[in-house]
Amino acid sequence: MKINGTPYRSIWLHPEDSTIVQIIDQRWLPHRLVIADLSTVEEAAFAIKEMQVRGAPLIGATAAYGMYLACLDAQKAGENLAEDWLAKAYDRLLDTRPTAINLHWALERMKKTLASVESLTEKAALALETAQQVCDEDVDICYNIGQHGLPIIEEISRRKGGEVVNILTHCNAGWIATVDWGTATSPIYQAHDKGIKVHVWVDETRPRNQGARLTSWELNEHGVPNTVIVDNVGGHLMQHGMVDLCIVGTDRTTYTGDVANKIGTYLKALAAKDNNVPFYVALPSTTIDWEIRDGLTIPIEQRRVNEVIRIQGLDEETNEVKQVLLTPQQSKAANYAFDVTPSRLVTGLITERGVCEASEEGIRGLFPG
Amino acid sequence: MKINGTPYRSIWLHPEDSTIVQIIDQRWLPHRLVIADLSTVEEAAFAIKEMQVRGAPLIGATAAYGMYLACLDAQKAGENLAEDWLAKAYDRLLDTRPTAINLHWALERMKKTLASVESLTEKAALALETAQQVCDEDVDICYNIGQHGLPIIEEISRRKGGEVVNILTHCNAGWIATVDWGTATSPIYQAHDKGIKVHVWVDETRPRNQGARLTSWELNEHGVPNTVIVDNVGGHLMQHGMVDLCIVGTDRTTYTGDVANKIGTYLKALAAKDNNVPFYVALPSTTIDWEIRDGLTIPIEQRRVNEVIRIQGLDEETNEVKQVLLTPQQSKAANYAFDVTPSRLVTGLITERGVCEASEEGIRGLFPG
Repeated sequence: MKINGTPYRSIWLHPEDSTIVQIIDQRWLPHRLVIADLSTVEEAAFAIKEMQVRGAPLIGATAAYGMYLACLDAQKAGENLAEDWLAKAYDRLLDTRPTAINLHWALERMKKTLASVESLTEKAALALETAQQVCDEDVDICYNIGQHGLPIIEEISRRKGGEVVNILTHCNAGWIATVDWGTATSPIYQAHDKGIKVHVWVDETRPRNQGARLTSWELNEHGVPNTVIVDNVGGHLMQHGMVDLCIVGTDRTTYTGDVANKIGTYLKALAAKDNNVPFYVALPSTTIDWEIRDGLTIPIEQRRVNEVIRIQGLDEETNEVKQVLLTPQQSKAANYAFDVTPSRLVTGLITERGVCEASEEGIRGLFPG
Repeated sequence: MKINGTPYRSIWLHPEDSTIVQIIDQRWLPHRLVIADLSTVEEAAFAIKEMQVRGAPLIGATAAYGMYLACLDAQKAGENLAEDWLAKAYDRLLDTRPTAINLHWALERMKKTLASVESLTEKAALALETAQQVCDEDVDICYNIGQHGLPIIEEISRRKGGEVVNILTHCNAGWIATVDWGTATSPIYQAHDKGIKVHVWVDETRPRNQGARLTSWELNEHGVPNTVIVDNVGGHLMQHGMVDLCIVGTDRTTYTGDVANKIGTYLKALAAKDNNVPFYVALPSTTIDWEIRDGLTIPIEQRRVNEVIRIQGLDEETNEVKQVLLTPQQSKAANYAFDVTPSRLVTGLITERGVCEASEEGIRGLFPG
């Protein structure tokens, strides 16, 4: 999507130097747009671990490019034992974010593909080609999610006689969490690009404020009207008819349609149900968990308390990005990262193959497996 | 309640100088405990306007003391036209927070009472006595709310065989919003003081973070175990049986039992209902609105966008309290201050006269009018 008028992806090969991969260093958003160069596997690993990149699809893409950079590292080192070298790179990259499913998937794919050729030169060429494929496929999946979600927005726009369609979203399931388009945002971007009037209510999404920092930023940059609200506001807006539709992303969806997503999603889904507002979840089918029946049994990550008691923002006096303490110094805090929205609260799942009911029947209808 | 082991009220007459009223300057909480002296009506007005004091009952008490300070001002000025002087003080104080009901009520009471005596000396003495009465009455009301709420906690404690009772609260309906005890916190303090094991989940309560800043602080100081959570977390905790009871305060309750309270209350009430967690609202009967039938018709204040896009905290490097920007500079934001929880989601109202159903019948049963 666009940044200040120019189309971008979230990761790309340097246009003039094919030994460098470029990313947006997302740690500085929204206050600064920093483009970072990755030219070694160590830099790729750092980018994932330190959250220069985040979002499962983008992490996968970065890991794939990381294996390409590992081939270049080996070439530079004049290393003959490419297999050993690549095995180390695989471990190094996998170790960055232990729970990211796409990371493991992308690395496995790279490993298998690279094993099919002998020489390091061939491996490097194939690694680049495959990493680019991983990216292009992710773009296709996200584009298709948008194509299937678009009619939902079009229908509401029609019903409202072309008036603005108000869409609420939580967290960042946007293009900068993927390679392009995003998941929850893809139908929104496609509606906007088609000239349908949309406006997005952006939940700030405490504690890490991905909505306030990232979703609002990317919507601004692409020119989609949006308004940041604190996470407490959505219910009030829905009570007063100010939300036509909710679309959120998901980290993991059970095959029965329960949705694990950023903490607070469940509260919005409850409010949507209470006010007859359609609540859709956009997802690539790779995030469907075919093992788990009951979403409430999904283990929920507890993250560092620091994310709750301190917050990062721009000190406008010094123009520095810094942290401030929000609570008493001695206060205890808890930081649950995700919650589970039961399928009964979900109007439908928007996937790359179409929209289905959030149920085993609905999901197996699109993905017979 | 206690601060660092010493019992406090939120407003009191200076123990050695009866011409000075003292308050906790709440703007610096939780990072600093600053006691401020009020010795003129202008200082009292400033305290209310600039939110050195906040919470309807405490605002009323401060205004009452403000009229006492106005009498002292007049004496110091050698002013004979006390009536005129006091009328100006009344206007000055009323002008500070136009929507606070207790402010108007306290000022009217002071005005009527002071009109009953002639001399400025008599007025000053009566003003002091009445302001102290206003405070004592508020303490009684809050104490009684606690007495009536206490059995709810005791019952849960009994049912759990004396295990910790987990109580979720939103915003600050604590003792520092009143003169002592608080409303939502009063049953909690009384349970704790009685030796019942309680633990409080404190919603941080964006955008102004009254939970993280004030509720957590006052519970810490009194020794009540508590954990700060972001506003997104409550639903998850309730889904997993980690909340036994919710108690919140209210700014205004319709005579039919709909509850206007800090934005986000409605979302927690929905989650409580969905998980069979009792959801109680604690209130002094003075906040019942006898005119409004449907809570959703209550006009909702929209506050400054700055409260959403910027946040205040302690810069631990410099030990300064400062603001940082959370969103992109150009992002729009909206700031709805309250929402309305329909009576159907409220288990009961805890008032100074007892606990009743959140319905016209329930309320008129306790307050036949």
